[in-house]
Amino acid sequence: QTQYFRDTWAEIDLDALYQNVKTIRDGLPRETKLFAAVKANAYGHGDFQIAKEALKAGAHGLVVALLDEALVLRQKGIKAPILVLGLIRPADAGVAARHHISVPVVQLEWLKEAGRTMGAGVPPLKIHVKCDTGMGRIGLKHEEELKEIEQFIKQTDEFEFEGIFTHFSTADQASEKYYQGQLAAFKKFVSVLETVPKYVHAANSAGALCHNDSFFNAVRVGIAIYGLSASQERPPLNKGKQVFSLHSKIVHVKKIRPGECIGYGAAYQAEKEEWIATIPVGYADGWLRKLEGQSVIAGGERAEIVGRICMDQTMVRLPHYMPIGTQVTLIGGQGTGDFITVEEIAEKLDTINYEVICMINFRVPRFYKRGSKLIEVENPLFRGV
Amino acid sequence: QTQYFRDTWAEIDLDALYQNVKTIRDGLPRETKLFAAVKANAYGHGDFQIAKEALKAGAHGLVVALLDEALVLRQKGIKAPILVLGLIRPADAGVAARHHISVPVVQLEWLKEAGRTMGAGVPPLKIHVKCDTGMGRIGLKHEEELKEIEQFIKQTDEFEFEGIFTHFSTADQASEKYYQGQLAAFKKFVSVLETVPKYVHAANSAGALCHNDSFFNAVRVGIAIYGLSASQERPPLNKGKQVFSLHSKIVHVKKIRPGECIGYGAAYQAEKEEWIATIPVGYADGWLRKLEGQSVIAGGERAEIVGRICMDQTMVRLPHYMPIGTQVTLIGGQGTGDFITVEEIAEKLDTINYEVICMINFRVPRFYKRGSKLIEVENPLFRGV
Ligand SMILES: Cc1ncc(COP(=O)(O)O)c(CN[C@H](C)C(=O)O)c1O
Ligand SMILES: Cc1ncc(COP(=O)(O)O)c(CN[C@H](C)C(=O)O)c1O
Repeated sequence: QTQYFRDTWAEIDLDALYQNVKTIRDGLPRETKLFAAVKANAYGHGDFQIAKEALKAGAHGLVVALLDEALVLRQKGIKAPILVLGLIRPADAGVAARHHISVPVVQLEWLKEAGRTMGAGVPPLKIHVKCDTGMGRIGLKHEEELKEIEQFIKQTDEFEFEGIFTHFSTADQASEKYYQGQLAAFKKFVSVLETVPKYVHAANSAGALCHNDSFFNAVRVGIAIYGLSASQERPPLNKGKQVFSLHSKIVHVKKIRPGECIGYGAAYQAEKEEWIATIPVGYADGWLRKLEGQSVIAGGERAEIVGRICMDQTMVRLPHYMPIGTQVTLIGGQGTGDFITVEEIAEKLDTINYEVICMINFRVPRFYKRGSKLIEVENPLFRGV
Repeated sequence: QTQYFRDTWAEIDLDALYQNVKTIRDGLPRETKLFAAVKANAYGHGDFQIAKEALKAGAHGLVVALLDEALVLRQKGIKAPILVLGLIRPADAGVAARHHISVPVVQLEWLKEAGRTMGAGVPPLKIHVKCDTGMGRIGLKHEEELKEIEQFIKQTDEFEFEGIFTHFSTADQASEKYYQGQLAAFKKFVSVLETVPKYVHAANSAGALCHNDSFFNAVRVGIAIYGLSASQERPPLNKGKQVFSLHSKIVHVKKIRPGECIGYGAAYQAEKEEWIATIPVGYADGWLRKLEGQSVIAGGERAEIVGRICMDQTMVRLPHYMPIGTQVTLIGGQGTGDFITVEEIAEKLDTINYEVICMINFRVPRFYKRGSKLIEVENPLFRGV
């Protein structure tokens, strides 16, 4: 049984995740496979638990950013297809092959070097050629390169040409122009192949939800499975159910007099008698200092963060006295109707919903829930005495 | 041997840490004990390695924020005194006592409840009474409460009154007024005790470095041991040697034509032919999106981040072609004279140096160096196949 010794935790609603994946899956053509993006610790939700649940709900495979992330999932027993999205070193091709992990390829040179280091007795490395159609990040840009790679793989035993893909940079925008340019470029890439590989994929969440022409035979969906909005501009603007919430408890409460100060720099000064609570969460948990002034839900009521956010603690001004142990919700709700969306926090931080959840880091235990039942606690900080 | 499969890493200069601790230690009165603050994974540096090195360099003990953090250090074999700074649950008093971990107390009620749950055969729990003299975070505020706690402990066997402390909120500011008020209040607290405990401590880095009257018989130093500046306003404004640096390598490089776009939203557009490199680090590593436009050191030369920072990747505009594998430094230097301080990044993010290093999270392996020799790699993401 996992032990944890702090009263700050993230709650992960597995039912919501299941439902989100299922709804997205049901909205896709039957032959289109859904790969769930579980990179970055499943956008902060916990990669192993999310991977399992997404697969149960109909995802066909998983995508991660790093080979390390893929290996951890394999080590924990995930058997489904896993594609690494980031480039791996040629020297690590053998490790990937041995663990049946698919990797992207953008250069013939890489294949040659990987082939030299892979050694004997290794299953063929499954590769997905990544085409840069306008994202400008990684990928080959010319059809000639793609043809060379196809020919090279045909002549070797070390590799299996499993997929071809690209990535959209503006699928969430109202304007279609750039998106259509990328789509056309990708189709052109696919058209020069002698043999189309098993997986042809382009769409992220915004692609899969907002563009019916983006599917090919697979999609890679991240933000939408977490119930967060994939686009601010394009329908559907409604989203699934938010999977992530962040909670803490009051560990200290006091009445302060007018003129008394709170926190570093004595930057907040009370104007009248006020009830101030301290909660054990701070910027080292990813609850950034810019959230000063943001409100939280304490015992069902909104309460404002006052004073500078500390590394491990935050002070809030309560509407009235509340006892130690009162639950404080920083993201999500308490069943009272009031709800703090990830997007509310993103707006306050002048960033996107993705960043907010990725920031809540390993110091914060994850509580996995089904219905209202706690089924598992993951505390990466401490695994037990 | 630790394995890691990505070309992004933080380098921790143990020599610098040793020297910083030693210099601070040497600047203190002989009888003043130095507690090194290693909470929040040692401000992102890695708590176990930093704890060991700080103790070797003359630190007497350690302070952490959470009981979980203290337990991990004990589990790894750290025998030195450890004080948890954040409040722990009364129900966890027994665990703390069994592992000889000291904890803060701010309320008689807590002691009573803790005493009830501790059970038999447990060594006495070492407690440090925390006085709130103006930080407004946690701590008791009246001398009467302190006296009651002292009397209560005298009558029980479960607790040892090991320390009394407070925390300054403005020790880094030019103005002394608020600081002096806190100092006087703390002295008053200490003066009402019948027996002064073993440890009397108040100063953080800014206290220990900028105020000769803050020492008592122990200090708790964090930011300064990491070679980062403890104050923007008070001497000494110079600091030790920066322990932390962050590096990556070019994994992809391409020439783009005028008018081509880079990254999400196609938000960056090239005006002329440009060399664009991709490095495998992004906001899910704690390299926040607001760092768009920040420069990095690529192959010894400054290069600007262009386009939106992605979750796992960042694009930079090179002054000229550089090959795949070229080292890119995001924080720190490459031995060429040019150097990116943590403070440069903090300024760009409109925050403090503390937050920058705490943000670089567990996805980034830590490389521990002595001289130019790599002596240990810690990869929290993946512990080996
Ligand atoms: C190649 C690739 N495919 C699929 C996804 C899933 O995207 P979404 O979460 O929008 O469905 C991502 C995520 N990218 C992140 C957000 C990034 O690189 O910044 C990706 O990089
Ligand atoms: C009680 C206490 N003592 C000592 C320190 C060390 O401070 P410094 O790093 O400035 O030497 C801290 C750090 N505080 C952090 C910064 C915070 O709570 O935000 C602290 O909370």
